[in-house]
Amino acid sequence: MRIDGLQYANWSEKIFRQMREGGVDAVHVTIAYHETFRETVLNFERWNRWFEAHSDLIIKGHSARDIDRARETGRTAIFFGFQNPSPIEDDIGLVEILHTLGGRFMQLTYNNQSLLATGCYETEDSGITRMGRQVIKEMNRVGLVVDMSHSADRSTIEAAEISQRPIAITHANPHAWFPALRNKKDAVLRAVTENGGMLGFSLYPHHLRGKSDCTLQDFCAMIARTADTFGVAHLGIGSDLCQDQPDSVVEWMRTGRWSKEVDFGEGSASSPGFPPMPDWFQDNRDFGNIEQGLYAVGMNAEEVAAVMGGNWYRFFDENFGPDEG
Amino acid sequence: MRIDGLQYANWSEKIFRQMREGGVDAVHVTIAYHETFRETVLNFERWNRWFEAHSDLIIKGHSARDIDRARETGRTAIFFGFQNPSPIEDDIGLVEILHTLGGRFMQLTYNNQSLLATGCYETEDSGITRMGRQVIKEMNRVGLVVDMSHSADRSTIEAAEISQRPIAITHANPHAWFPALRNKKDAVLRAVTENGGMLGFSLYPHHLRGKSDCTLQDFCAMIARTADTFGVAHLGIGSDLCQDQPDSVVEWMRTGRWSKEVDFGEGSASSPGFPPMPDWFQDNRDFGNIEQGLYAVGMNAEEVAAVMGGNWYRFFDENFGPDEG
Repeated sequence: MRIDGLQYANWSEKIFRQMREGGVDAVHVTIAYHETFRETVLNFERWNRWFEAHSDLIIKGHSARDIDRARETGRTAIFFGFQNPSPIEDDIGLVEILHTLGGRFMQLTYNNQSLLATGCYETEDSGITRMGRQVIKEMNRVGLVVDMSHSADRSTIEAAEISQRPIAITHANPHAWFPALRNKKDAVLRAVTENGGMLGFSLYPHHLRGKSDCTLQDFCAMIARTADTFGVAHLGIGSDLCQDQPDSVVEWMRTGRWSKEVDFGEGSASSPGFPPMPDWFQDNRDFGNIEQGLYAVGMNAEEVAAVMGGNWYRFFDENFGPDEG
Repeated sequence: MRIDGLQYANWSEKIFRQMREGGVDAVHVTIAYHETFRETVLNFERWNRWFEAHSDLIIKGHSARDIDRARETGRTAIFFGFQNPSPIEDDIGLVEILHTLGGRFMQLTYNNQSLLATGCYETEDSGITRMGRQVIKEMNRVGLVVDMSHSADRSTIEAAEISQRPIAITHANPHAWFPALRNKKDAVLRAVTENGGMLGFSLYPHHLRGKSDCTLQDFCAMIARTADTFGVAHLGIGSDLCQDQPDSVVEWMRTGRWSKEVDFGEGSASSPGFPPMPDWFQDNRDFGNIEQGLYAVGMNAEEVAAVMGGNWYRFFDENFGPDEG
């Protein structure tokens, strides 16, 4: 079973077919960065058109059972998430509405301070806000997973403690391996995994040691070490694949409508666009390379299966429905 | 089994308890008159609060199976509908979005011309529009039922013919019994029922012979005659109960934001508000009176059961899901 914990591609039939070629059973797809509620609904509408047009390749995912259904029928289940809380605007009632529409993950921040928490690019991290506490409780109730991939450390640790259900960092790597601003320090990873949460390993070059030149061996050895430290049960892939996107999209991701000035984010004036992916992970057909890489660094079949999809499957199964507790 | 084909009450725990006392297993509830999409979502949010606060009395209805679930657990299943297409604005993609949120009926018009069809208060009825044809097709695809209760005759007949699935007049009576503008002529009832559609008999006094003084016997005899003419399988109740609503609500229903002038609709300057309900149907506890009244005019047990809920159950079961055809 192969499950990817995050992608934001310029979707097309080509990419849906590559998912099938790569044996990808499910993907968590970003459906909003800075979009308002109504704009997010327009994005759901666009996906509805794709589900109708490509019903032989993709199905909408609501629960882990849809992954079974996708596997039985040779398709890929698409689960949705928001990389910012902008779709809920200032209205806690939209948490359940967006879950009903298919949202399953929501980041409490995207780099900046939000109404809920602090993003990883702010200088001051004031932790979870008053509204943030209310929204985490509501997300727990309906089954919308808290994702802290782009949040600051204190906010992330607090979210892991406040949340009554496990949270996720869907796409990042350990800071100890490569000290990118977006990668996560051990204390953060410990807070998330100790509370049952998940880390999805990112293949976005800015998160990789050596960036686009990172080797498969180095990436997989890092996964094996992280498993030794935090437990293999809490680890998956979250490729952050942004396939076929024009550079205007990374500009939207970085600045939305919040600034009139250029913000290069993880890029720079000399390389402002999407960085080239490592040669061993160009698109959805390359998940087999990672699988082989994990075996090559000494992980056994059970561990490899867990990281490639089994852990995300269990996490989806336990966290996408209403809280029964 | 008792199912009501339309209510728009000023909802409260009191009314939910009266539904239980009256043995009402399911109700089609109006959730929008002139609301935009975003305003309709706010109404869904309000209902989500009620489902959470009164989970011992009501559940959200998606399909006829939820009526079974409601009966097994002693609750009432609430199904939603729009009395105007205003919630889809000019965006056909919102048809599926609103179905996902729980919409199961949508009127193509509310008295006035809409983007889709002509309302029953217009002088000219130009039939189904270009967008109307597209929207009917999309409603058929996802399982959102076309409701023509407030539409003009030609538009209704055309809708019944264009629609690939049965349509409904959820709340009205035969014009031959009482010639109110909102009641339906035989040609209209024939077009709807011949295509498998349903008529829900209204208890709104402006649709009753003798208005608030209409007798139970006269109302039930009218139902029996309608069954003889159009077939009992196409008939149900659609009470149009607007319990506990202030008169400001009937003003909103009649004029929304489309006019600066007063429009009395079915009322008049001397009685502009909600008319008093007949003494034998004051609220949800009185469905038993209608049941007894139907027996009293000579209907048999099978026919009474069909009209009181069996027909709506079958109709919900066949028409609220994606078109399998």
